[in-house]
Amino acid sequence: MFPGEDLVYLGDTARVPYGTKSARAISQFASEGSLFLMREDVKLLVIACNTMSATCLTDLAKSLPVPVVGVIDPGVDGACEACRNGRVGVIGTNATIASQAYQRGIVQRQSTWHVFSQPCPLFVPLVEEGWEETEAALMIARQYLAPLVAQDIDTLVLGCTHYPLLIPTLQRIVGPGVQIVDSATQTSKAVRKLLDETGLRSARSEGALRVFLTDIPPSFIGMADRFLARPVTHVERVELPACES
Amino acid sequence: MFPGEDLVYLGDTARVPYGTKSARAISQFASEGSLFLMREDVKLLVIACNTMSATCLTDLAKSLPVPVVGVIDPGVDGACEACRNGRVGVIGTNATIASQAYQRGIVQRQSTWHVFSQPCPLFVPLVEEGWEETEAALMIARQYLAPLVAQDIDTLVLGCTHYPLLIPTLQRIVGPGVQIVDSATQTSKAVRKLLDETGLRSARSEGALRVFLTDIPPSFIGMADRFLARPVTHVERVELPACES
Repeated sequence: MFPGEDLVYLGDTARVPYGTKSARAISQFASEGSLFLMREDVKLLVIACNTMSATCLTDLAKSLPVPVVGVIDPGVDGACEACRNGRVGVIGTNATIASQAYQRGIVQRQSTWHVFSQPCPLFVPLVEEGWEETEAALMIARQYLAPLVAQDIDTLVLGCTHYPLLIPTLQRIVGPGVQIVDSATQTSKAVRKLLDETGLRSARSEGALRVFLTDIPPSFIGMADRFLARPVTHVERVELPACES
Repeated sequence: MFPGEDLVYLGDTARVPYGTKSARAISQFASEGSLFLMREDVKLLVIACNTMSATCLTDLAKSLPVPVVGVIDPGVDGACEACRNGRVGVIGTNATIASQAYQRGIVQRQSTWHVFSQPCPLFVPLVEEGWEETEAALMIARQYLAPLVAQDIDTLVLGCTHYPLLIPTLQRIVGPGVQIVDSATQTSKAVRKLLDETGLRSARSEGALRVFLTDIPPSFIGMADRFLARPVTHVERVELPACES
């Protein structure tokens, strides 16, 4: 959606996954990562992590000099557009679901709707193992989603960046009548809108991608290729500035 | 095995799991954790993590003023005692298996033996989710272990601290003819032997357990109770000293 923008990506690979950590640790990591990106002089910051968006986006946005876009609000918007029967399911990590950020956001816009949520902590490791379309994934997904399906949801929000790779498996379980809302796509739309509204959008035809990581695990390049559906050839290891916890 | 010893436990919960991270990151975390424990004046250090033992035990032991016991050598000893047909299977995280530490250790002692290894990255999240005895766990374990079973192993080494909770499931798959060697039990025996040999063993009847964590995730206490099979009532959050990476 933004071929003309320079993308500066920071992955805190030394400390992921965040979804099982405390709010305090997540907030500290968020401060450290965003301080690093501010030093790279970014004009807009996307918190492309549901756990972090759910835990500390508001505080972060207050403390930073650039617009900050999280993935929760766009996902909430997508759910509100897609849902017809007022019954929405939300899946995510333990921390995202425990924060109730999606639930609150949807009910703030649609006070009579019902939101049913379910943490699915095995989905990230399944995707990282490349097992999205195995029988095991199907069985695990069936177990996680059964309570949501039983509630007659017509919309399912994917509250985690890894889950889009599971869409074929999830759609088999919830059936064709349930719309799956991917908060990543919704977030990209929100970023495009914001860039246009603020006049920040680049007029160039091609930008660069820089990938910074706090650790370079052996599996990173292959996984990045799968997520981006194009080769990632160069990554740089960096230390983040320390913030007080 | 050591009712009279004070146990000082450090869990790097802000950065676990280590099994998918680089050797460089793991070595740095190991240095920081052991520096912290040295300041607590421990008389012996157990690297109770297969990934860390496999990656950096030798370097760590050289740099520290106390005896250091890892979990690999005791696991290797256990495998060498248990195996009759010279065919051993080893399971662990990606990093532990990639290090080939078990494979090398066993072949050093028994040069004609064959060691077959298999990374099982989904096992830790399954255990953390409390799903050790589900159909999904059985299906995943069957897929991981099939290549080892096909090699006619008679001994299976559990090269990860989480795996003992999966023993009933694993035993169902490998059958009663395969001995399962738990490196945690083997390590405790090695520590007891070392304490006796060096005269370091406490003569008291009851020691204390102190639990230090770099993060206190909501799930920790419940999980600690399951692993220790007794209540863990108090934990302390600490910052580790930073070591250069």
